[in-house]
Amino acid sequence: MMAGMRSRLRHGAGVSELVVGDGPEFVQRELAEWVAERQIFVVTSAPVWALYGGAYCAALGAGGDGGAVFELPDGEAAKTPAVAGDLWQRMLAAGGRRDSRVVTFGGGTVTDVGGFVAATFMRGLAVSHVPTTVLAQVDAAIGGKSAVNLPAAKNIVGAFHHPDKVVTPTAVLDSLPARELRAGLAEVVKMAVLLDGELLTLLEHDLSSLLDDPGDARWQALIATAQRAKAAVVERDPKEQGERRVLNFGHTLGHAIEAVLGYGVLLHGEAVAHGMRFATRLAAARGLESDFEHRLDPLIRRLSPRPLPELSVERLLEAVGRDKKAERRGPVWVLPRGVGSWHPVRLRADEIAGELADFLAAANRGC
Amino acid sequence: MMAGMRSRLRHGAGVSELVVGDGPEFVQRELAEWVAERQIFVVTSAPVWALYGGAYCAALGAGGDGGAVFELPDGEAAKTPAVAGDLWQRMLAAGGRRDSRVVTFGGGTVTDVGGFVAATFMRGLAVSHVPTTVLAQVDAAIGGKSAVNLPAAKNIVGAFHHPDKVVTPTAVLDSLPARELRAGLAEVVKMAVLLDGELLTLLEHDLSSLLDDPGDARWQALIATAQRAKAAVVERDPKEQGERRVLNFGHTLGHAIEAVLGYGVLLHGEAVAHGMRFATRLAAARGLESDFEHRLDPLIRRLSPRPLPELSVERLLEAVGRDKKAERRGPVWVLPRGVGSWHPVRLRADEIAGELADFLAAANRGC
Repeated sequence: MMAGMRSRLRHGAGVSELVVGDGPEFVQRELAEWVAERQIFVVTSAPVWALYGGAYCAALGAGGDGGAVFELPDGEAAKTPAVAGDLWQRMLAAGGRRDSRVVTFGGGTVTDVGGFVAATFMRGLAVSHVPTTVLAQVDAAIGGKSAVNLPAAKNIVGAFHHPDKVVTPTAVLDSLPARELRAGLAEVVKMAVLLDGELLTLLEHDLSSLLDDPGDARWQALIATAQRAKAAVVERDPKEQGERRVLNFGHTLGHAIEAVLGYGVLLHGEAVAHGMRFATRLAAARGLESDFEHRLDPLIRRLSPRPLPELSVERLLEAVGRDKKAERRGPVWVLPRGVGSWHPVRLRADEIAGELADFLAAANRGC
Repeated sequence: MMAGMRSRLRHGAGVSELVVGDGPEFVQRELAEWVAERQIFVVTSAPVWALYGGAYCAALGAGGDGGAVFELPDGEAAKTPAVAGDLWQRMLAAGGRRDSRVVTFGGGTVTDVGGFVAATFMRGLAVSHVPTTVLAQVDAAIGGKSAVNLPAAKNIVGAFHHPDKVVTPTAVLDSLPARELRAGLAEVVKMAVLLDGELLTLLEHDLSSLLDDPGDARWQALIATAQRAKAAVVERDPKEQGERRVLNFGHTLGHAIEAVLGYGVLLHGEAVAHGMRFATRLAAARGLESDFEHRLDPLIRRLSPRPLPELSVERLLEAVGRDKKAERRGPVWVLPRGVGSWHPVRLRADEIAGELADFLAAANRGC
């Protein structure tokens, strides 16, 4: 394995070890010691377990020492306090103890819910993530954020609780639908744009061939690079009070789109892709950048070709104001100035209403 | 104010300031800056608010900047995920933001639930505690532990989340029923026994006059001393992996008694008092101490004169095994060896069944 496939994220409570490889044998090798002789609770999703439970079961330590495997419903529907409550109950009924451990195996929903349950069961069990989607591999599993949604807004309830290990198998990516693969790459674009110019160039050049061959070894390098970029930001700003806000690029509007459409209509990455386009337009309109929009727009549109459904400007602005990062002066919009450079700006609803209406009209026509 | 009334607890994420004083003016003085120009959510209980809402409302910053006052049902019934879920929803509906702040005003239930909601809303809001019972003042509010119960076991879901300030008014103690005042002192006895011989002597000499006059200035010194004793332990063992276990003296059986009886039959301190007596007996039977039982027993019995209701040994042992501190070799029992000295021992159900049956038979007769 290349040295570049292994990195570390230092945080207040210790270190998360990040490692990227291929399939079940790799995961087994990386987790064997961590799961040995422990009660292991695996949190996964029903579709992921149906596809990969057989191949990865032993590697994850599933059910070790009286533990259990919990299959969540698919998608955002699983990110509720009620689902977390059900897991707490089942872990207690299974004899969960302070030295029990949690392994998550799935996409962003699974890492978010499994991470939250691990953070709060008996005030914190050790957790490791084995992320199976691009989104989870480069974003959700890195940095200790966990969360569930409330009906009115996303990720409102959660905790910071870092994993001991993030063990990332890229072999699972070849079963992802092309739409999900593309949407996941939107988060990679986000990090490339604001953190890593080489990653951006690589995406521009190789996007088609990467999408054609999700099992390819170049994916390991891509994922590992994106993980390192995110880890570096998290290390410098663990509680998202400053620089980590850069990772919110595209998310201010993206979250609002998801909240108003209802979760599941667009994939998270698709909503974020639209959000990045809008943020880039806001930047251009304010003279923060000159021709970056022309570079970014085509790339983002290759990832998220779906037009936006019709959306009410008023309801979107209301949802933007409920964003958990919003303070009284309005939420922070991360506006790109060019590769590796960005500017955080607080904008209230009334300051962007017109631009948002224009953007929605164009996006609805697929422009 | 005496210097001794102000102390600090250093923890991984910063410092908690602990300050003890008398009534509303004192609280106002201590919190004014912390609540200024912030959205403030006060978490309290209905009976506490009925008694003291009027006098303390302004001092707590209640409702500041569009915040709200949340009155929980009284007692353990409020410590559920459903109640936490309701608070999350109401905070979101009220426009809760990352820079909103939480003030808890009440007993241990209020600090536990309010602390948990503060720990998890938007991944953590700043919180300060204004504890109004002896139990909350010397124990629940100090050390960052927060929790809610599941039906089958207490404090199973929670987080470590330290308050910025613990502002303790002793004036409120004079409205506590004598039974609750005595039960709260059981936690003071716990800390005195294992951490502070002078505090123990003071309790032995002055218990009657302290109980006669809850508004007395000596209470401030008593509470401040107990807070400092707990804070010192927490600083040395923030996540309860070692020395902090001393604070579990009496709680291994105490929690089980509460779980089997149903919360609310005995007060927490009463259950802990019985647990301390049993742990002291276990210590004596194992030759860990010689005559400490004769010193401790009379004091504890002055605090908790109620005989134990009839209880099934089997159900108690089962509940002990579910304690969140239990690992595979059985839960840790903190056995006292004398003032300031203790010994943690893992004991499985089968190792204590006989002694527990004897203890219950005697306690049921009021012995």
